[in-house]
Amino acid sequence: MRRLHKSIETLTSSYDLYGLVNHAGRDNLPSRDSIDHILQGLDELVFPGFREYGALDHDNLQLITAEKVYHLARELVGEVEKSIAFSSRQGDANCGNDGCHAAAELIVDDFFDELPKIRGILATDLNAAFDGDPAAKSAAEVILSYPGFEAIMVHRIAHFFWTREVPLIPRIMSELTHGATGIDIHPGAEIGESFFIDHGTGVVIGETCMIGRNVKLYQGVTLGALSVKKEEANRKRHPTIEDDVTIYSGATILGGDTIIGRGSTIGGNVWITESVPAGAMVYTTSGDQVVRTV
Amino acid sequence: MRRLHKSIETLTSSYDLYGLVNHAGRDNLPSRDSIDHILQGLDELVFPGFREYGALDHDNLQLITAEKVYHLARELVGEVEKSIAFSSRQGDANCGNDGCHAAAELIVDDFFDELPKIRGILATDLNAAFDGDPAAKSAAEVILSYPGFEAIMVHRIAHFFWTREVPLIPRIMSELTHGATGIDIHPGAEIGESFFIDHGTGVVIGETCMIGRNVKLYQGVTLGALSVKKEEANRKRHPTIEDDVTIYSGATILGGDTIIGRGSTIGGNVWITESVPAGAMVYTTSGDQVVRTV
Amino acid sequence: MRRLHKSIETLTSSYDLYGLVNHAGRDNLPSRDSIDHILQGLDELVFPGFREYGALDHDNLQLITAEKVYHLARELVGEVEKSIAFSSRQGDANCGNDGCHAAAELIVDDFFDELPKIRGILATDLNAAFDGDPAAKSAAEVILSYPGFEAIMVHRIAHFFWTREVPLIPRIMSELTHGATGIDIHPGAEIGESFFIDHGTGVVIGETCMIGRNVKLYQGVTLGALSVKKEEANRKRHPTIEDDVTIYSGATILGGDTIIGRGSTIGGNVWITESVPAGAMVYTTSGDQVVRTV
Amino acid sequence: MRRLHKSIETLTSSYDLYGLVNHAGRDNLPSRDSIDHILQGLDELVFPGFREYGALDHDNLQLITAEKVYHLARELVGEVEKSIAFSSRQGDANCGNDGCHAAAELIVDDFFDELPKIRGILATDLNAAFDGDPAAKSAAEVILSYPGFEAIMVHRIAHFFWTREVPLIPRIMSELTHGATGIDIHPGAEIGESFFIDHGTGVVIGETCMIGRNVKLYQGVTLGALSVKKEEANRKRHPTIEDDVTIYSGATILGGDTIIGRGSTIGGNVWITESVPAGAMVYTTSGDQVVRTV
Amino acid sequence: MRRLHKSIETLTSSYDLYGLVNHAGRDNLPSRDSIDHILQGLDELVFPGFREYGALDHDNLQLITAEKVYHLARELVGEVEKSIAFSSRQGDANCGNDGCHAAAELIVDDFFDELPKIRGILATDLNAAFDGDPAAKSAAEVILSYPGFEAIMVHRIAHFFWTREVPLIPRIMSELTHGATGIDIHPGAEIGESFFIDHGTGVVIGETCMIGRNVKLYQGVTLGALSVKKEEANRKRHPTIEDDVTIYSGATILGGDTIIGRGSTIGGNVWITESVPAGAMVYTTSGDQVVRTV
Amino acid sequence: MRRLHKSIETLTSSYDLYGLVNHAGRDNLPSRDSIDHILQGLDELVFPGFREYGALDHDNLQLITAEKVYHLARELVGEVEKSIAFSSRQGDANCGNDGCHAAAELIVDDFFDELPKIRGILATDLNAAFDGDPAAKSAAEVILSYPGFEAIMVHRIAHFFWTREVPLIPRIMSELTHGATGIDIHPGAEIGESFFIDHGTGVVIGETCMIGRNVKLYQGVTLGALSVKKEEANRKRHPTIEDDVTIYSGATILGGDTIIGRGSTIGGNVWITESVPAGAMVYTTSGDQVVRTV
Repeated sequence: MRRLHKSIETLTSSYDLYGLVNHAGRDNLPSRDSIDHILQGLDELVFPGFREYGALDHDNLQLITAEKVYHLARELVGEVEKSIAFSSRQGDANCGNDGCHAAAELIVDDFFDELPKIRGILATDLNAAFDGDPAAKSAAEVILSYPGFEAIMVHRIAHFFWTREVPLIPRIMSELTHGATGIDIHPGAEIGESFFIDHGTGVVIGETCMIGRNVKLYQGVTLGALSVKKEEANRKRHPTIEDDVTIYSGATILGGDTIIGRGSTIGGNVWITESVPAGAMVYTTSGDQVVRTV
Repeated sequence: MRRLHKSIETLTSSYDLYGLVNHAGRDNLPSRDSIDHILQGLDELVFPGFREYGALDHDNLQLITAEKVYHLARELVGEVEKSIAFSSRQGDANCGNDGCHAAAELIVDDFFDELPKIRGILATDLNAAFDGDPAAKSAAEVILSYPGFEAIMVHRIAHFFWTREVPLIPRIMSELTHGATGIDIHPGAEIGESFFIDHGTGVVIGETCMIGRNVKLYQGVTLGALSVKKEEANRKRHPTIEDDVTIYSGATILGGDTIIGRGSTIGGNVWITESVPAGAMVYTTSGDQVVRTV
Repeated sequence: MRRLHKSIETLTSSYDLYGLVNHAGRDNLPSRDSIDHILQGLDELVFPGFREYGALDHDNLQLITAEKVYHLARELVGEVEKSIAFSSRQGDANCGNDGCHAAAELIVDDFFDELPKIRGILATDLNAAFDGDPAAKSAAEVILSYPGFEAIMVHRIAHFFWTREVPLIPRIMSELTHGATGIDIHPGAEIGESFFIDHGTGVVIGETCMIGRNVKLYQGVTLGALSVKKEEANRKRHPTIEDDVTIYSGATILGGDTIIGRGSTIGGNVWITESVPAGAMVYTTSGDQVVRTV
Repeated sequence: MRRLHKSIETLTSSYDLYGLVNHAGRDNLPSRDSIDHILQGLDELVFPGFREYGALDHDNLQLITAEKVYHLARELVGEVEKSIAFSSRQGDANCGNDGCHAAAELIVDDFFDELPKIRGILATDLNAAFDGDPAAKSAAEVILSYPGFEAIMVHRIAHFFWTREVPLIPRIMSELTHGATGIDIHPGAEIGESFFIDHGTGVVIGETCMIGRNVKLYQGVTLGALSVKKEEANRKRHPTIEDDVTIYSGATILGGDTIIGRGSTIGGNVWITESVPAGAMVYTTSGDQVVRTV
Repeated sequence: MRRLHKSIETLTSSYDLYGLVNHAGRDNLPSRDSIDHILQGLDELVFPGFREYGALDHDNLQLITAEKVYHLARELVGEVEKSIAFSSRQGDANCGNDGCHAAAELIVDDFFDELPKIRGILATDLNAAFDGDPAAKSAAEVILSYPGFEAIMVHRIAHFFWTREVPLIPRIMSELTHGATGIDIHPGAEIGESFFIDHGTGVVIGETCMIGRNVKLYQGVTLGALSVKKEEANRKRHPTIEDDVTIYSGATILGGDTIIGRGSTIGGNVWITESVPAGAMVYTTSGDQVVRTV
Repeated sequence: MRRLHKSIETLTSSYDLYGLVNHAGRDNLPSRDSIDHILQGLDELVFPGFREYGALDHDNLQLITAEKVYHLARELVGEVEKSIAFSSRQGDANCGNDGCHAAAELIVDDFFDELPKIRGILATDLNAAFDGDPAAKSAAEVILSYPGFEAIMVHRIAHFFWTREVPLIPRIMSELTHGATGIDIHPGAEIGESFFIDHGTGVVIGETCMIGRNVKLYQGVTLGALSVKKEEANRKRHPTIEDDVTIYSGATILGGDTIIGRGSTIGGNVWITESVPAGAMVYTTSGDQVVRTV
């Protein structure tokens, strides 16, 4: 393996040639592993006694909660600080090193202020999942095993940081969950309470979607954009779904001006690029399928 | 970060307000991490020498097997005991604490009795995968890397516990594999031998499906329900697939009374809500596609 | 649990009865965990400073790079050696134990020679992702969170080992990424530079696909085979996609003779089994959808 | 290895035969590993920035401190509760299960009240070490590497729990440090400020020792008992060392009535069983040594 | 750091020049870490419920015991096999590779046969410790924290392997404990029941010592050899201590013909090279100490 | 536990009050854990194949060596840089941040230059241990289990850094070994080749000792200082031991002007504060011991 020494030199030279190297110092980007760890910690804060392994009783609930909040706050401040300092280096934000730390602390303080409210909304999502799936035997089963519930929980956390314009972290959060569940919700999407995704693999919900209350999606649903031109990045590119809509598996709904009216039902595999009035049922006739028997 | 102390109080109060807290004592629900660990251990028992890292030879195979069985038995008894005690607290079962331990031991004893038979069926699945995929170069490749094979292996284990009415654990098992493979097989589904799923992402197989022998599915196939009313939870809601059926990618077959007859072939993206006779070929004409050239 | 002792005996006997046991000695198959670890290490070599956790500065970049290359070279030589020795036992290759080690060293030496070139191509993929997604805010965001970018990076590595006819390892690599991203690219596929997959869940790219430059795919796209007969395993079974083609979500393109001409756009959910000329736009009319309002 | 199955039965039977089994339920004794972990955590609280690995700055000192205190408080309450419940089962104390938890919380609350005072005394010990050893180059060197300083730090913590009559934990603490440093200080010993042990291996300080301020010991010093009758366990059995005493290596001082007067110097290898007045110098004449030359 | 590459070459060359390299293949010497792990496992087998962290109750005691025995048997067989194969390569034993495995299995089988008897003897040591130390408050305290008790436990295990002429492992066991406790008992020493070492740091007990029942040692006691000529390695070089002897701290007893008669008491710091009759008391007069007062 | 919140405030305030806080930024002191890890790595470099767990054969020896050297070099540069920067802040050295990094690289480069020579000297120590202990059955046994050999190995490494005036690290190294072996060798001591310490617990070797070749020490030997005044820190305070000297257990030799002449033998427990001519034998008459029989 004599050539290795030479390959190392070529590789190190290529770092100058092709770039793609992050040199700005140490630990200067948020870490996927840390964000993953933070999400697990928040999960345990939101559902005490369901996820964690070990003792939980009334006596130590207060101590455990305080310890976790302080730990997560510290870890979050560190990651948020790196993210907004990165943004500042890119010219998208403006904080010096000290300012970034203070700004990060403010955002994290606000996040923990907001967390009880997020729990309240997740309670409605939990009910929606339990009511909406005949196979669900208990609320505990939903909390312990439903990927759609995991996805909406992480989304509601990621969305908070999105609204506070923290870069990188919301997207890392949503892609971690995308990897784990096959459900791809952009952290920018606005989603009302009592939301449920069943099965979920292949669901895509775009950045500028607006989704009302009591909406239910099945696997493979796309709520996407018609145009993917970079210069339209700041427009609303994804559809609006009003309250009480159900969208069955494989349906595709595209466009920023497309509105699915309140109470509509969108059938499986349907392809929609224009608005649909309230209370509509949209489905595909399977008339052009051929059944040939021997 | 002065506000953290207050946020902790609000959060702890919200535990009383919104609930979603599991207080019933310590370690009283099955742990996802333990179930994951158990599945890995069973995988090594089922395919000795393929998955594990380290020594395996004739000399120590007996010692290793005994050690693993005792370890997994202990871990399984613990998780099963917690699950049926949970069920008992919900009023769905009836065992006191001591009774739950004895009942768990009985189920786990039966499971290890059954395991050699499960290996036998998995041998037929392995053959089906190797024969059914031109890209498969060896049986070892299937065992080491095919997600469809991993999914059916876990399903056959999860289904055992489902038939013994152990709550939570079968679903946690199937969702762990859903996350890892994108294949969502409800543990209640009954699946015959020589079963193969190719690629697999997006496959959904519902709770009351009945699938015969020699069935082959491709990615994105849904075997689902027409009705999702909670009150119909105890009816057969998902289709029956008879022996020797192939279902291509993206096909959707819905309904508890829908039967796909023996030897049928269901084409890609087909949407089926009624029975299909034996030997049928069902496909979509792509007549309404437009090819516009410049 | 008296029956356990007996179950252990039955299980051990079943190892003789049904086989599925790998006895050939110790550590004689590549390990999924090692391959996973190697991929993480290569990721850090390819994007220094983005993924790893800890110090990186100009001063120690040389030391860190050398250390990683030697470490990964050693780990890779071990796994490649086991893979080609396995192949040799199957009669597919021909190297004695010493020959396998030397052959493995040669392949790994070549791989590290190639790595800077792979970085160069990944730089074009990175640009394609950033340019092609309006939601992408920075190149760092793509590197840190885009599953489509992760998939193409691993594919370019796995494909190198595929071209060198190393068995098992390329497929284990691609399935590890399939599990993490829902994107299933067979390591045999040939893919040109500036390739981008958006969202990605459910994408399937077959073994004998040939894909040109500047191609962009969305979630759920299948580039598959028409025939799955084992005896046709050595033919080109999957389509050719020429330069500058975009294929929208859910489209299915099948067949080894199918060519999508340069610059074409394939619409969502389209089903194609025949060639399409350069510059074509193919889409489905949604004429047979019914919108029923109350 | 056929006989193993039988050995397991014999061994399990021996658990009934010879006892030495702790059956009282789960986790009912303090854990050496937990106590070790607690000591490391306290070490980091007492010397912030010296021992821990990772970030410490003014900005996060408050967050880190709060997190550590809550974490250690929870871990300590658990271990103390098990210890006093054990004691209660032995008849040495009297608390029901709930009472034990409350009692443990009280003790741990008091401990953290006391901790700043303990830091103050350790500051005097640090000065004593730095002043007393010509080889010490900086205070940081003492904190980072002196076993004598580690021993007195752990003793001051263990002694707090001893005075609160917590069983087992103080002794486990002192033996953990004995193992790490070779210095065996019984947690019952009362030791004044500015205490220093140099080198330390082999030092033994008994349960009822009383040691004043500014005392310095060298390796191998024993402050022990004359009588070791079990029935005298409640008497003062070990010596009193007044302020400003230095005791050189290998000296042995025995007996509960033995008092080494203020300001004395005890020479190496001296053996003392009676009191020595203030300001005394005690040494051994080496007159009976023979130097034989060739 | 350009010179590193050259240093690596020089270092690798020095491996040929000075030797000290073990090339004989992989994993061919017993591993200190494995022996350490085995000792911890045996500790948990010998004192169930005292050391381990986690659940232990009547229900699972049988399962846990079986699992541990199988695990430890496998690990022990591996280490013993490597040790006797090493010995065989040195010409000290004679077993081919297969023979070594079988021989290792036999020894380990015998060890687990013996283990209940070892527990019985340790019960006498436990009583001796509790009775012999006024500071001991409970038997649990001895098990959880006394280094002298830990040392005799490990010695009784190491001694078994010594009597079976397993090389390396017994000494590695005793040195692990020497490191942890400061007590250095050669695995060859024969020690009767009810043995207790108090404090223990600095105790040395030589290879050919013979120690009766009810013997008690304090810290710093040496039972050593007069001659250290290599050619006398096979003679009895260390003293015999008869039943019911107590030896106080710092005493040195040397010589293979030296016998300390039954019931004797040897005072602190005494130096003995000749036999002492039964019932003797040996002590040093401290007459040549000078007490100088100011 | 209401008072905890207040205790945290008091504790944090005490950080200002009593100091003992290291605020100078992050990771600014060498880490004990890193030094420990480095010593283990160096151990594996010095004795390839003896300590490490896993594969080592001629084929990969080169790769493994290169990887380890680069890894250790990087880790060492980091720790050395922090140490000399610390020293610079104390005013004892003078390097800016960049200068400290370059200086650290130079020292570490030199260290790896020196390492083959250190191996050569350790080979003589190994022979001395094997020849000097009748109980040693093989060189492998010495490498695997002798604490005296471990201590001299670490000393020879620590001493290199001492001679290069690296602060803190040498002392941390020697105290880590002191904790593990009970042997306390100050890193400043100069020790010739073929050095052996048997048993070792309680040995103390001071900072300015000079020890020749072929010297052998037993447990409990002190080579110490007469004066411990801080202002004499820069004088030679500890004895000189010439070639071929043996010093038996418990002997104490004090003073910077004390020279033990070549070839001398110093008996057990002897106390020496003046020089001894070459070839002398020094021993204690045990004339003042009393043997009282009943």
